[in-house]
Amino acid sequence: VSSLEKTVSAILPPDPGREKSVRARLDSLTKPLGSLGRLEDLAARVAVMTGADKPSLARKAVIVMAADHGVAAEGVSAYPPEVTRQMVLNFLNGGAAINVLARHAGARVVVVDAGVSGEPLEHPALVSRRIGNGTSCITRGPAMTRAEAVKSVESGIAVLEEEAGKGLDAVCAGDMGIGNTTPSSVITAAFTGKPPEDVTGRGTGVDDEALAWKVSAVKRALETNRPDPADPLGVLASVGGFEIGGMAGVMLAAAARRIPVVVDGFISGAAALIAAGLVPLAKEYMFAGHCSTEPGHRAILAHLGLRPVLDLEMRLGEGTGAILALGVLEAAVKLMNEMATFGEAGVSEKGKK
Amino acid sequence: VSSLEKTVSAILPPDPGREKSVRARLDSLTKPLGSLGRLEDLAARVAVMTGADKPSLARKAVIVMAADHGVAAEGVSAYPPEVTRQMVLNFLNGGAAINVLARHAGARVVVVDAGVSGEPLEHPALVSRRIGNGTSCITRGPAMTRAEAVKSVESGIAVLEEEAGKGLDAVCAGDMGIGNTTPSSVITAAFTGKPPEDVTGRGTGVDDEALAWKVSAVKRALETNRPDPADPLGVLASVGGFEIGGMAGVMLAAAARRIPVVVDGFISGAAALIAAGLVPLAKEYMFAGHCSTEPGHRAILAHLGLRPVLDLEMRLGEGTGAILALGVLEAAVKLMNEMATFGEAGVSEKGKK
Repeated sequence: VSSLEKTVSAILPPDPGREKSVRARLDSLTKPLGSLGRLEDLAARVAVMTGADKPSLARKAVIVMAADHGVAAEGVSAYPPEVTRQMVLNFLNGGAAINVLARHAGARVVVVDAGVSGEPLEHPALVSRRIGNGTSCITRGPAMTRAEAVKSVESGIAVLEEEAGKGLDAVCAGDMGIGNTTPSSVITAAFTGKPPEDVTGRGTGVDDEALAWKVSAVKRALETNRPDPADPLGVLASVGGFEIGGMAGVMLAAAARRIPVVVDGFISGAAALIAAGLVPLAKEYMFAGHCSTEPGHRAILAHLGLRPVLDLEMRLGEGTGAILALGVLEAAVKLMNEMATFGEAGVSEKGKK
Repeated sequence: VSSLEKTVSAILPPDPGREKSVRARLDSLTKPLGSLGRLEDLAARVAVMTGADKPSLARKAVIVMAADHGVAAEGVSAYPPEVTRQMVLNFLNGGAAINVLARHAGARVVVVDAGVSGEPLEHPALVSRRIGNGTSCITRGPAMTRAEAVKSVESGIAVLEEEAGKGLDAVCAGDMGIGNTTPSSVITAAFTGKPPEDVTGRGTGVDDEALAWKVSAVKRALETNRPDPADPLGVLASVGGFEIGGMAGVMLAAAARRIPVVVDGFISGAAALIAAGLVPLAKEYMFAGHCSTEPGHRAILAHLGLRPVLDLEMRLGEGTGAILALGVLEAAVKLMNEMATFGEAGVSEKGKK
């Protein structure tokens, strides 16, 4: 049995019977009924998915999967492809946005080389899970072989397992990869059925002309590969990316271990489409951290039935929206765990005089 | 010169010339231009309002002003009036939502008795700034005298000054007071000109019948007192609350010291209307923490031109939405301060190959 098959079969539905007792606990706390709004829903989901009465989200990690994309050579990005490699070094040196936000949230950053172009990077803190030297260009053929697609998902599973072994209460799935909004648009079009124009955006910031060219690249990738949403591994192999497969693996392994996983923006969302395509139950363990300005992201969230915690017009990736939302999630859980009840605090309840 | 006059005259416009250099700094950081979205706007506002190149939001306080309201005797709340007093004790014991969220954010909670009904509360951590033994019922006459209105604002100024003396980088203005959504609706109607039906909500959770009664109370308070928005202290005196005046004072004193102040929900928002009515420039130092589900809150935010950071369907008060948003604000500032620049990290910039 492969690690993918093992993980898939380990994903079980959360116990719906727990919702009632969790809600009773939330209603007993010293606040007007329901007045913490979505914080109550978030806390309840964490309690139900983890099965813990007083879940902790103290041990947090952001797994940042980095890889390159053959399609970047088509000029679909505002930045040159070597930026993927340069940003991996920036992550390892602690200077990127995700490093700052992870420090703020008290989370560790796990940087994974899932297939960055060029000589393999070497750094004591880098997790090397290279599936290839960047993907092939998806406008001309498949991104990778089916075996590589499986391997990329399994590499994500392995990274999550390793982190779980160190102690892990919640995880964010982030990405780095110049050009990776293009495969994400193709994946989104494949799963949601939306036209390329509706799910293709400016990514790191291309102008009108480059955006039109990017839409044409998405169309050509769809025509060349004809990705079939009924075959999520086939979609990943034909039009995906190594970091996208890796993040899908992280999400599946987190679901198998009942660890809440916070999906980040558009690329992380594309990985969530692959993961949920393989195992629909995986959605039960996902939170949508935020809503990106990339137009395809809303289509992904609607397709997955996930409501974002934050809407701050971010479009950076790296797990930045996810880790910021995880701070809110942790606050919600602490409220559930730490607030006094009406009885404990001697506070009169509604309508009781 | 009174402390109110002194504070009012100390509120100066932020230096608009700083915006450009702050934006240049943000654009030099290793991320696609503008990709941190509203986090960049929030960080830039903090830098401009404080005048600091690398502002810190490390020293944070939530000032929770508590007071009672004569109008509560009219049955406008789902909870009995003694809950104000009980909740003050809950704050002092660390068991309320605001205590949990302040601990999560690393902020101190300052609990102020601005006029809680009954025997004065005694507790070593309680700040006693009692203006009266609860307000008078606003459907029958003014809430307080004009002298008390001035005193309530000055008490808030004094509390902020005391906290500033301990070291304060940012402050949240929160409230506790059974019945206080009713005066807040009257204040909102007075300043925005909206009809009472549009700015009166369920507060802590009244049913349809009680809501209709509450709307009628708001109408009667408006008819009895005819609050004039051109006279903000008159509005406060006739239809306000001691905690609302106190929060307005906190906001004015924060603006005078160029300390960012995070407005919480509906009641804190009503205080912001009073503060901005007295000194329009005070708005320049305000952030709207979140958007409450109380219908009048959107009218307040539109009137003040403030865009909320969070929208989590909260309606608890106490400063809960404000402190949660301050965590996001602090993250935004840390990004500006701590991220590596393209030059420092050796990352290629847009379009440069």
